[in-house]
Amino acid sequence: MVQVNDNYLKLKAGYLFPEIARRVKAFSAANPDADLIRLGIGDVTEPLPAACREAMKNAIDGMGTAEGFHGYGPEQGYGWLREAIAKHDFQARGCEISAEEIFVSDGSKCDSSNILDILGEGNRIAVTDPVYPVYVDSNVMAGRTGEAGDQGRYAGLTYLPINAANGFAAEIPALAVDLIYLCFPNNPTGAVATKTQLKAWVDYARSHQALILFDAAYEAFIQDPALPHSIYEIEGARECAIEFRSFSKNAGFTGTRCAFTVVPKGLTGQAANAEEVELWGLWNRRQSTKFNGVSYIVQRGAEAVYTPAGQTQVNELVSFYMQNAAIIRRELSAAGLTIYGGEHAPYVWIKTPEGIDSWGFFDHLLNKANVVGTPGSGFGSAGEGYFRLSAFNSRSNVDEAMARITAL
Amino acid sequence: MVQVNDNYLKLKAGYLFPEIARRVKAFSAANPDADLIRLGIGDVTEPLPAACREAMKNAIDGMGTAEGFHGYGPEQGYGWLREAIAKHDFQARGCEISAEEIFVSDGSKCDSSNILDILGEGNRIAVTDPVYPVYVDSNVMAGRTGEAGDQGRYAGLTYLPINAANGFAAEIPALAVDLIYLCFPNNPTGAVATKTQLKAWVDYARSHQALILFDAAYEAFIQDPALPHSIYEIEGARECAIEFRSFSKNAGFTGTRCAFTVVPKGLTGQAANAEEVELWGLWNRRQSTKFNGVSYIVQRGAEAVYTPAGQTQVNELVSFYMQNAAIIRRELSAAGLTIYGGEHAPYVWIKTPEGIDSWGFFDHLLNKANVVGTPGSGFGSAGEGYFRLSAFNSRSNVDEAMARITAL
Repeated sequence: MVQVNDNYLKLKAGYLFPEIARRVKAFSAANPDADLIRLGIGDVTEPLPAACREAMKNAIDGMGTAEGFHGYGPEQGYGWLREAIAKHDFQARGCEISAEEIFVSDGSKCDSSNILDILGEGNRIAVTDPVYPVYVDSNVMAGRTGEAGDQGRYAGLTYLPINAANGFAAEIPALAVDLIYLCFPNNPTGAVATKTQLKAWVDYARSHQALILFDAAYEAFIQDPALPHSIYEIEGARECAIEFRSFSKNAGFTGTRCAFTVVPKGLTGQAANAEEVELWGLWNRRQSTKFNGVSYIVQRGAEAVYTPAGQTQVNELVSFYMQNAAIIRRELSAAGLTIYGGEHAPYVWIKTPEGIDSWGFFDHLLNKANVVGTPGSGFGSAGEGYFRLSAFNSRSNVDEAMARITAL
Repeated sequence: MVQVNDNYLKLKAGYLFPEIARRVKAFSAANPDADLIRLGIGDVTEPLPAACREAMKNAIDGMGTAEGFHGYGPEQGYGWLREAIAKHDFQARGCEISAEEIFVSDGSKCDSSNILDILGEGNRIAVTDPVYPVYVDSNVMAGRTGEAGDQGRYAGLTYLPINAANGFAAEIPALAVDLIYLCFPNNPTGAVATKTQLKAWVDYARSHQALILFDAAYEAFIQDPALPHSIYEIEGARECAIEFRSFSKNAGFTGTRCAFTVVPKGLTGQAANAEEVELWGLWNRRQSTKFNGVSYIVQRGAEAVYTPAGQTQVNELVSFYMQNAAIIRRELSAAGLTIYGGEHAPYVWIKTPEGIDSWGFFDHLLNKANVVGTPGSGFGSAGEGYFRLSAFNSRSNVDEAMARITAL
């Protein structure tokens, strides 16, 4: 008799966004004329950059010819894209990352959950709280946790609270851990890490031979030139960190799908026989066996991000969303709400008003302002009392949403 | 200290195709003027259908507008594509499969390996020998096998030999198994299953409450209208089978990336507490958590496969490759080789001449005819003494390859 993976049964009822979708659907059914503004899920709204569109259309034309047709590409991504990434995103910032260390993929969500494939079952795992739910759920599904407790926290995981009291900077864990998920600029809090803060993590990881999984999907939104975009800007990070990057948020690729993961050569983990095993080789094998590479057409679109026109267009998109974030910050502050984030990230993290919890504030905004946000408690128990608004929307929707909220 | 997944260390040196690539590279380096013809890896060569290209270009134009922009889509695929698939590929053939049971993905390689995520560790697993290596390697990596023995067979797997003696039809296993990988039309042998043969598997699976993983990536190449394209043409298959399908080989999407998996509602596996758990819900959760859907642009391209123009163009592509297969069959037979397959599949399975093993024949063809094929032993120990040629190439290359081989 075929057996299922019992770990899936430990998962709590709904992944956060489906639950939001359920409540929004119910509200819309009851209020068919309501003009909803969605500032919930972090999905971009503005048109795809012209440089990317043009490159993809050229690629499609090529696919219609015998000479320009492309079948299976390298599972790791085409060399020209990996070279462009290594050069512009890393070498230009002084990071010693080569094209061979870049693995192109169809999404950071995939990569940050698939990475567990190559890691052992006995690792002690630390996540922040609140946290991007995929880090936790993928560990639950892979059997790396126990059951969930009353607070929704899973046994076996080390939770590192981030909140206003610690400036949304997780403290270095007192107990040794082997695997640490960090996300900067942070989803959901919008916090960002300084080089000094990242250095403390790198030092910790090196001294404990731990591995940092560094999610930099939002690096393009950093405004202060002194802040690090990559963990490889920190000395020693090549020995202890894997980095996830994406074209979803900078180039608006959430529906186009392209991302990449950096696995430095020489970065190792330990086998049961105490031998050091290179993670690059394991990830390469994982991707070669279980993945067939990203669409050639899409890779050509991603490559165009690095052209001068592409860079200009992507910078304009980022500026546009960051202006939205500034408007949200300004209006909500003026309305008397305490807010965080939104300065180097497209997320504004709001303290819910006294006496209202996260889902209460969600329902309040949905019902009274017809604005959809994301309850902080959906990202973890320490997110209770907070609420996330995304800056990804048109200017008119952001203005209108702010007008409705400030009028409450 | 971070631990690696030790199961990866059980994997034999190279996945088949990288090893072929290594030998071809060495040969090319030593013989830079050799005009190689590649009939090895099953990769299509002909231009992408015009209907698909046009649909994708329209989608890209849409992505350049505020109204036509698409961000995150449903992880399961867009409803319009799932509807088209359910209607054309299943309902039109009398299979009771609904759109909701179709999960669109970026590849069958991904799906057929990721499916293990939702299945338990204790399942007894049967694969044919020879077999598509991904089925085996993904099980090794997931810790569902023991170590490899001398023949390259992994402890814990049940191997079902397929060879000339049994007409390339695996016998129903004597011992009970819980999970059975079947691929028809078969990669690598080119064999195809009749309804009677599939019914025997469905009957077996139902009586043992086993699950069949049915890979139908090559169904478009079936020429005889009496042969089943889907396992759901067999009564009772909804209770015991998941099916993998792809646009890679019919519409030439190997570099464009789109596939799908069918998980019928009501199909269950057993939890540790003996409860029946629906696999649909588990796969839906897996895809929602670890995947972000296929590129909107690519899904529009796949949708165009089902338009009248798309159907005509895809049928032409399939006919073209099947004419290649007929040429390969005719020429190699005339040259005195014993051959199988190639009648309902784009693969011709050749018995290597007396006294030459699979890799010996590979080297022989590479060195003497500058033709790259695939050694049968690369697909499993029972593939020793066989050799696979693919019909995916231009007519002139197929003609030239046959002229060279028959001249040896």
